[in-house]
Amino acid sequence: MRKRFREYGLTFGKLQTSERNLISDVAGIKVGHVTLINDTPTIVRTGVTAVVPQQVFEKPLPAACAVLNGFGKSLGLMQIEELGEIETPIILTNTLAVGYAFQGLVEYMSKKKRFRTLNPVVCECNDGFLNDILYPAIKSHHVFEAIEAAKEEFELGCVGAGTGMITFGFKGGIGSSSRKLFDGYTMGALVLANFGAFEDLIILGKKASDYVKSGIKKSSEGSIIIILATDVPLDSRQLKRIARHSFLALGMLGSAGYHGSGDVCIAFSTQRGSIEEKGKTFDLLFRAAVECTYEAICDALFCAETMKGLSGTVEEMPVEWLLG
Amino acid sequence: MRKRFREYGLTFGKLQTSERNLISDVAGIKVGHVTLINDTPTIVRTGVTAVVPQQVFEKPLPAACAVLNGFGKSLGLMQIEELGEIETPIILTNTLAVGYAFQGLVEYMSKKKRFRTLNPVVCECNDGFLNDILYPAIKSHHVFEAIEAAKEEFELGCVGAGTGMITFGFKGGIGSSSRKLFDGYTMGALVLANFGAFEDLIILGKKASDYVKSGIKKSSEGSIIIILATDVPLDSRQLKRIARHSFLALGMLGSAGYHGSGDVCIAFSTQRGSIEEKGKTFDLLFRAAVECTYEAICDALFCAETMKGLSGTVEEMPVEWLLG
Amino acid sequence: MRKRFREYGLTFGKLQTSERNLISDVAGIKVGHVTLINDTPTIVRTGVTAVVPQQVFEKPLPAACAVLNGFGKSLGLMQIEELGEIETPIILTNTLAVGYAFQGLVEYMSKKKRFRTLNPVVCECNDGFLNDILYPAIKSHHVFEAIEAAKEEFELGCVGAGTGMITFGFKGGIGSSSRKLFDGYTMGALVLANFGAFEDLIILGKKASDYVKSGIKKSSEGSIIIILATDVPLDSRQLKRIARHSFLALGMLGSAGYHGSGDVCIAFSTQRGSIEEKGKTFDLLFRAAVECTYEAICDALFCAETMKGLSGTVEEMPVEWLLG
Amino acid sequence: MRKRFREYGLTFGKLQTSERNLISDVAGIKVGHVTLINDTPTIVRTGVTAVVPQQVFEKPLPAACAVLNGFGKSLGLMQIEELGEIETPIILTNTLAVGYAFQGLVEYMSKKKRFRTLNPVVCECNDGFLNDILYPAIKSHHVFEAIEAAKEEFELGCVGAGTGMITFGFKGGIGSSSRKLFDGYTMGALVLANFGAFEDLIILGKKASDYVKSGIKKSSEGSIIIILATDVPLDSRQLKRIARHSFLALGMLGSAGYHGSGDVCIAFSTQRGSIEEKGKTFDLLFRAAVECTYEAICDALFCAETMKGLSGTVEEMPVEWLLG
Repeated sequence: MRKRFREYGLTFGKLQTSERNLISDVAGIKVGHVTLINDTPTIVRTGVTAVVPQQVFEKPLPAACAVLNGFGKSLGLMQIEELGEIETPIILTNTLAVGYAFQGLVEYMSKKKRFRTLNPVVCECNDGFLNDILYPAIKSHHVFEAIEAAKEEFELGCVGAGTGMITFGFKGGIGSSSRKLFDGYTMGALVLANFGAFEDLIILGKKASDYVKSGIKKSSEGSIIIILATDVPLDSRQLKRIARHSFLALGMLGSAGYHGSGDVCIAFSTQRGSIEEKGKTFDLLFRAAVECTYEAICDALFCAETMKGLSGTVEEMPVEWLLG
Repeated sequence: MRKRFREYGLTFGKLQTSERNLISDVAGIKVGHVTLINDTPTIVRTGVTAVVPQQVFEKPLPAACAVLNGFGKSLGLMQIEELGEIETPIILTNTLAVGYAFQGLVEYMSKKKRFRTLNPVVCECNDGFLNDILYPAIKSHHVFEAIEAAKEEFELGCVGAGTGMITFGFKGGIGSSSRKLFDGYTMGALVLANFGAFEDLIILGKKASDYVKSGIKKSSEGSIIIILATDVPLDSRQLKRIARHSFLALGMLGSAGYHGSGDVCIAFSTQRGSIEEKGKTFDLLFRAAVECTYEAICDALFCAETMKGLSGTVEEMPVEWLLG
Repeated sequence: MRKRFREYGLTFGKLQTSERNLISDVAGIKVGHVTLINDTPTIVRTGVTAVVPQQVFEKPLPAACAVLNGFGKSLGLMQIEELGEIETPIILTNTLAVGYAFQGLVEYMSKKKRFRTLNPVVCECNDGFLNDILYPAIKSHHVFEAIEAAKEEFELGCVGAGTGMITFGFKGGIGSSSRKLFDGYTMGALVLANFGAFEDLIILGKKASDYVKSGIKKSSEGSIIIILATDVPLDSRQLKRIARHSFLALGMLGSAGYHGSGDVCIAFSTQRGSIEEKGKTFDLLFRAAVECTYEAICDALFCAETMKGLSGTVEEMPVEWLLG
Repeated sequence: MRKRFREYGLTFGKLQTSERNLISDVAGIKVGHVTLINDTPTIVRTGVTAVVPQQVFEKPLPAACAVLNGFGKSLGLMQIEELGEIETPIILTNTLAVGYAFQGLVEYMSKKKRFRTLNPVVCECNDGFLNDILYPAIKSHHVFEAIEAAKEEFELGCVGAGTGMITFGFKGGIGSSSRKLFDGYTMGALVLANFGAFEDLIILGKKASDYVKSGIKKSSEGSIIIILATDVPLDSRQLKRIARHSFLALGMLGSAGYHGSGDVCIAFSTQRGSIEEKGKTFDLLFRAAVECTYEAICDALFCAETMKGLSGTVEEMPVEWLLG
């Protein structure tokens, strides 16, 4: 893991980051990774990331989802839409592993509580450029391990589900960021960033292709999964509003979206209840969502390191062009 | 399998049934079942049903989905919504087996064609009353077997995914029906019926509870999956309109819907293209969808047989009260 | 106004009606009509109906909408979806008068409070068979009069917006019904019923066309607007679930839906807050919504009287075939 | 009207503009304005803009809409969603005038063709800072005049519906831009821009508040209406995908969205049919939509001039900070 965005003195946005500048700044949230890197029997560059709100083991949490472009295979969205809640940790992994992740969540939760039905939430991106995605490297036990490994301090970049992911033509993966809100509340984002064409990338107003030549000219297929968490008491409709706005961060980074993307945001709160739905408050919540998402994507790029895989090598993003 | 609805001389609706009165009356569509009934190591009453349009192996087919109540775990709906198509057979199974079904579809399709991404479509109902649903009886190879077993003549009732399902307090499961449209076109429905409270059931205007006492007073949890197929060339928006109307059949049978249901309809066409969107045509398409769905549910009830399982015995629906 | 459904000793459903069997059984709700019947300068058979929750003048009320078939021109739905609330009375009128109704609501509300923006909610059906709909009979002042005329006891059938409406080939219009829920709570429905083909109609299990010959064989164009009100504290997502289920009542009455319909349900609560989202509770809420809607449509048919208008005469529905 | 963005030698995006860099570069599309500026009897700063595809008078055109934030009163969206088409010109005006605009469209179209129903499409923003919005300055005849005035060359900035609008704290209004696609096809955008907080604005990577002090610190209430037109044959689902992506332009300009916004995009094609839905094609369509929308908003800012109105003066955006 390379240095984070803020470690270079860079900043973004109007709002202050919280303690760790991670989604785990929202009390109760932990993140765990399982990273699989092997060259035999085939090239494996993949993994599992678990976003684990501890509160979800007690009771379902208010949640909502939004989709910018639905070319993806995320599981559990229909029930989130109907009941406005999540009842499991959120698992991120590769596209063709979501079945095993589903089974892993069912098995894990069945150790925790008795149920006859369960809505496992699994989101995915396609790491098929670096990873031999048809090889079933991910098994259900990796879900257990990712959940059990969850902690408040966690790695970014080429770890967990982010291991084989590519962002704007550079090596990407997992990013995270947080913002302080009002009255002591916090919002945090974790992204699995696997989207973007090299020639689109703009960071802090600078166009990457004006400065850097190393980004691969891959097709723009790929997706982003955005997980937003907060401790502001919000209902599902309010969370959906916030989720829908998070995608504006992609525009800020220069993306106009891509046909082949499965761009999904799941937003949840660790608190039931609601707050007054005023312009001042929601303007701030929308901004926090966008700032967190933007900076989390930046951190995915800053932290990831050059990786060689199935179909070639993906370079890490140089950072000098953004400094000074 | 007991006798079908029409074998008693009963009829429903204004439109004529097609040759077999099955979804396979739409050219190219086959259905396969894998039925699992075991008493060791635990009580297994479950299975897999595959709806296999042969055309899907050549190219994606126009499709759409609609949801009446989204308390369910069906997979693949987001991408159907975005791209308006299906690219795999549709697999039906029990709620907690959808992960294995996803993996099975990925593996099956990878034998058929090369891909780096795939949108497996899997729908489910919960058979946990008769079946020990936490036991992973369904494995990915059952998906292979169900697809390979697909044929134009197939069983109804307690078979495949319908093995352990309950409909309006009676033993239910898989049903199917078809209708002739205009210009030689056909529409067919296949249902996985696992919904309904006994005291709600009305067939052909008669309230079951006025005639029959044997329906179990189970909770109304449960769902229905409706698969509609046609060879009318329709685009995804048009298919969505038809899918949305199919749920009116549930009202015709006396249901007001249930909190615990995952009621999903997937409608697809075997033909690309479109027809003029006139009232006369779409009134007929809506009616065909509702009639097929209604009669398919009736056949699930007529064909299923009494079954003893994990938590008790579920009686087959007597039919005498509907005759004469 | 002819006699209501229950005045013949008929009943429907499992739940008990409340005091008046009207939407005004929900405390605070009043309904007002303006009925326009003229033969000069052209044939006018139209009007305005206002559903007026007194609480809406104090603060917005939680609300949601659902659409079965969106061939209609109702106003205000986008903001109901976003903010989950209504902030005006709900106005019903004819299709081409919604502009005047919008202006009327703006003017009316501007007398009540200061605002710079307002979301007028106006729903409509097309009375163009009996009414010369291109003639602008409805003016904005009729909205004032309908709101000011609102009271707890109100007429059904050929009154207000229902004046020129046709239901299942018979003269229809405005209907209403209510149900007692739990803990002293109530739900009520008001419908503007202008939908349905004569040959589809089934009431209490009897097919109208088996008994009666007088229904006109008009095209099935037409729509239904369903207004559901309750004092159960519910949020917008919960109200949307209820609204979506109300359409099952149309299936119970034999309808498979129609291409030319604008079928809209708006559900609102007079109380902010929420209740626990359990199966037992929501099964009951869904049932109450469907029973109210069904019986309100019946009352529109029972209460309306034969009317001669622009393109012919529409007969009232005989009731004898349903008695004894 | 001040000089346009490109007249200063500025450019944006990868794609080439078409002939006029206006939505009217799509063959058949004309735009007309009615501008109302009066100081008696009250302060009027408002108007009507009509986007008039000539093809719509022959037959409905494929269309779709998308909503980023639904705090708005646009009319006609439900039927666009259901039938996937528009059948009238699109009228833009102020929030409280949409009723008159509805009536104006009904009257106008009734001169053109016979109908019993019609879906008038009217979108709006709130000009209540500069304009006394409660005064009904807009009447239905202004719709006639705007449609009749439509031509291929039209003004931008403080004209028509844009007369009283404010964009990112500066005077804004109407903007337009176009892009060449492939195979001779074109896409164009017209915006009614009335959104954005001054401190958010970023153009071409430069933050306005770092250079300019004159933007008003108004509340961020306000909205944007985006009209996208193309002659690529696309169906409604495909147009909806494009519409949904257009909002990324708002992110590119620094916006994170606002609680009080009614952000609506309507996309339509002048051609029925469809094209193959490939990544290469749709990546380009998404990009064209975002580039058009971005530059149209810039032109609204560049072309608008300082205006004094009801509650104060809104300065035009200086342009020097963007030059050299």
